[in-house]
Amino acid sequence: MAATLGELAKLTGSELDGDANYSITHSADAASAVSDSLIYFNSIRDVENVNAGAAILSRSARPKFSGNKLLHDNPRAAFALATTALHSYKSVFTGVHASVCVADDVQIGDDVSVGANSVVQKGAVIGSGSSIGAGCFIGENVSIGADTRIDHNVVVYGGVNIGAACELMSGVVVGADGFGFEWSEGKWLKIPQLGSVVIGDNVSIGANTTVDCGTIHNTIIEAGVVIDNQVQIGHNVMIGEHTVICGCTAIAGSSVIGKRCCLGGRVSIVNHIKICDDVHVQATSVVTRSLLKPGVYSSTLTAQPVSIWKKTLARLRQLDALTQRLKSLEKNN
Amino acid sequence: MAATLGELAKLTGSELDGDANYSITHSADAASAVSDSLIYFNSIRDVENVNAGAAILSRSARPKFSGNKLLHDNPRAAFALATTALHSYKSVFTGVHASVCVADDVQIGDDVSVGANSVVQKGAVIGSGSSIGAGCFIGENVSIGADTRIDHNVVVYGGVNIGAACELMSGVVVGADGFGFEWSEGKWLKIPQLGSVVIGDNVSIGANTTVDCGTIHNTIIEAGVVIDNQVQIGHNVMIGEHTVICGCTAIAGSSVIGKRCCLGGRVSIVNHIKICDDVHVQATSVVTRSLLKPGVYSSTLTAQPVSIWKKTLARLRQLDALTQRLKSLEKNN
Amino acid sequence: MAATLGELAKLTGSELDGDANYSITHSADAASAVSDSLIYFNSIRDVENVNAGAAILSRSARPKFSGNKLLHDNPRAAFALATTALHSYKSVFTGVHASVCVADDVQIGDDVSVGANSVVQKGAVIGSGSSIGAGCFIGENVSIGADTRIDHNVVVYGGVNIGAACELMSGVVVGADGFGFEWSEGKWLKIPQLGSVVIGDNVSIGANTTVDCGTIHNTIIEAGVVIDNQVQIGHNVMIGEHTVICGCTAIAGSSVIGKRCCLGGRVSIVNHIKICDDVHVQATSVVTRSLLKPGVYSSTLTAQPVSIWKKTLARLRQLDALTQRLKSLEKNN
Repeated sequence: MAATLGELAKLTGSELDGDANYSITHSADAASAVSDSLIYFNSIRDVENVNAGAAILSRSARPKFSGNKLLHDNPRAAFALATTALHSYKSVFTGVHASVCVADDVQIGDDVSVGANSVVQKGAVIGSGSSIGAGCFIGENVSIGADTRIDHNVVVYGGVNIGAACELMSGVVVGADGFGFEWSEGKWLKIPQLGSVVIGDNVSIGANTTVDCGTIHNTIIEAGVVIDNQVQIGHNVMIGEHTVICGCTAIAGSSVIGKRCCLGGRVSIVNHIKICDDVHVQATSVVTRSLLKPGVYSSTLTAQPVSIWKKTLARLRQLDALTQRLKSLEKNN
Repeated sequence: MAATLGELAKLTGSELDGDANYSITHSADAASAVSDSLIYFNSIRDVENVNAGAAILSRSARPKFSGNKLLHDNPRAAFALATTALHSYKSVFTGVHASVCVADDVQIGDDVSVGANSVVQKGAVIGSGSSIGAGCFIGENVSIGADTRIDHNVVVYGGVNIGAACELMSGVVVGADGFGFEWSEGKWLKIPQLGSVVIGDNVSIGANTTVDCGTIHNTIIEAGVVIDNQVQIGHNVMIGEHTVICGCTAIAGSSVIGKRCCLGGRVSIVNHIKICDDVHVQATSVVTRSLLKPGVYSSTLTAQPVSIWKKTLARLRQLDALTQRLKSLEKNN
Repeated sequence: MAATLGELAKLTGSELDGDANYSITHSADAASAVSDSLIYFNSIRDVENVNAGAAILSRSARPKFSGNKLLHDNPRAAFALATTALHSYKSVFTGVHASVCVADDVQIGDDVSVGANSVVQKGAVIGSGSSIGAGCFIGENVSIGADTRIDHNVVVYGGVNIGAACELMSGVVVGADGFGFEWSEGKWLKIPQLGSVVIGDNVSIGANTTVDCGTIHNTIIEAGVVIDNQVQIGHNVMIGEHTVICGCTAIAGSSVIGKRCCLGGRVSIVNHIKICDDVHVQATSVVTRSLLKPGVYSSTLTAQPVSIWKKTLARLRQLDALTQRLKSLEKNN
């Protein structure tokens, strides 16, 4: 969808420095930009030999680029808005595909699409403008808000509640049984998982991520949370608004994560942990105790050449003995 | 499904202290319980201002709760049994859905349900009372025991054998090729994976977990094993009875895990490891050597404020040098 | 499919020492071999009481086995070739299943099979001899080369390009949106992900692995790369030819991995990292800085008995203080 620079300036709240009628057809990066491309710059050093039709950049960078400019305090955010308009998402299906198994009493809003071979069970509600891809299972009494996009082969178990303007990538499973067993008379007895999952508005969930249902109450993901691929969220977990969860992170059962937190890639949070608002946990760190003060936390290791690491690891295994030796030296000094 | 306290006492093997005819309709926790709720207490301090219709608790806690009581040595286990009865699992499908592709010679027992858009290939056997959800693939000659529950979008490759009373959550893949390649003449040559997977009775497998087939023999998961979400089990692995595997754990090829082990969340076990019975590995630990004595093992780190962790990490990288300095001090003393 | 030893010698480039007309029906290991089995030996100590019809082994091991022999410098590679011939993969579907939703203009080569309930969107091209399993989604304008095997419930988003002779196990998701958001005016603004994924020839991808599309350019996996289960590959990543990626490894956005690397199981690579050719990263290691020299790198820990590990961990947390104490001792000496 093409747009003029005037339209893009208005849409993004940018100041236009250039030709308001100039037509832009797509977003690009500096290296591949041509005369109808829109690009953005976050740093000055990128601005060289660029053929873009227009650039979004900060006011301080204005002298560095000679072409059409959109000036904005946060060029990347403005670029995101412009790009969303230029490359608007369109479901690959229109309406409810003939092959979909839909129960009679399902409530489907206007402009909803459901892809081939999906199943929508009784009592489900799908809000206007939402799209569901191919091969999905939408269980009984699932509620999906307006303008939510669910891709392909997604499973939403019965009773799950998903807000508006969410997106669930392919392979996501929401509402499978939490992991609860009790040892009794020589075997593991399953604790039935009676709760469900409640997901707020504007939540994004990456491919093959799993979110388990609660044991008695619900697992809760508040509005504005963004979650990457292959994340595991255990039963009874609560995640506060606008928290970011990077790929492969795992949150064990009943842990509570605050608002505006950032969990880096492959973070591990053990069960029954409390993390307050505005905590940042660095990639691959392991959280075994509650974090009750905002700040940045880490236990990230760094790979070294193996010959060096082997020595380090050997010394690490002697660390208590080394400390004892140090103590005894101190005594004798 | 409602039940009287008399029925629940009998079912759970509890001693009834209260009205045998009192009707219970559902399980709850203390905070949300109402007059027809069943709850349980594991610790005394929870028992305050509770409105439950009845509680399961230990005999020693009897004086703490004034309402109807079911007395049991393991209140959580008794609660699990009662809850299973009150909230019995019911497949969302009945019989074999019209859209299912079933080969002619498939053997399907009584009271089996198969959900929409599933595929059951030739030679498959599905035991009585089992349910298979929507969008599943059940390959050639797969055998599934009685009363097993397979949720949605599950893939079971040809030849896999699954026992009775198992449950496989959505997105599980059982029997994909193991990861075997040999470098030859400038490329990776695939080692065909000829084995399959054999899963015993009463095994539970969480969402999006993967279990690879064996190279020549089978990958084996013995009876009573419980496995959480996003676990990876490599080819030729053997897992002993009643072992618990928490979320995101990975077991590399040809490792053998004993009976009654517990692998915490995100444990990593490298290939060709042997772990004896009754080993507990703590969450996120890495097992690079066989563990031949029962006990608890760990290499779990703990996130610290990043300013402290950075110093620790820097010192860790100097650890061998530090040890040398200590040695030289000792020599001079 | 049976073969004579003469045929297998020719196929594998082995020297035959035995009966060229002897018929072999299957591959096996030493323990289970019978008179029509083919086995191989990599080490001498295995060769005892073996009933195999023939064995592949190195010339130096020739005296150790008295039966029919195929002599080869790389017995495991020769065995892989022979086994591939004896147990050739055959799609469980033939032709395009009646239930498949195929757009009108799809180009499907000769001898292509597409399984039940799969969807192939407009503009897709599927090369001769390729097979697609049940429940797959093949998006608009996807291109799949010849002789590629895609198993069940695989999602390939629109625009993705997959080479010839690849294999994608069940549950793989290729081309979902990369994880790009910008904080703006109190919420996370999605950065549209405009790129796609390009996968070269002879690439193998394990079950439930996810490969995200690029932000503006493509995510690229070069020819001959082999990838295990549950691997996560972020947007804009580039992976060089013949690199091996073991299970559960995660590569964050925009990192570039060289040729012939080996990333062990559960390796974590943070974003914007560069790894040169011929780097080997050991299992569970974390790469937070670029690795610009070939070699082996590690930060792999090893689980210890928990009583020992607890002391080690406590000392680790004091490591900076310990170093200070050492310094002060050195000063006083």
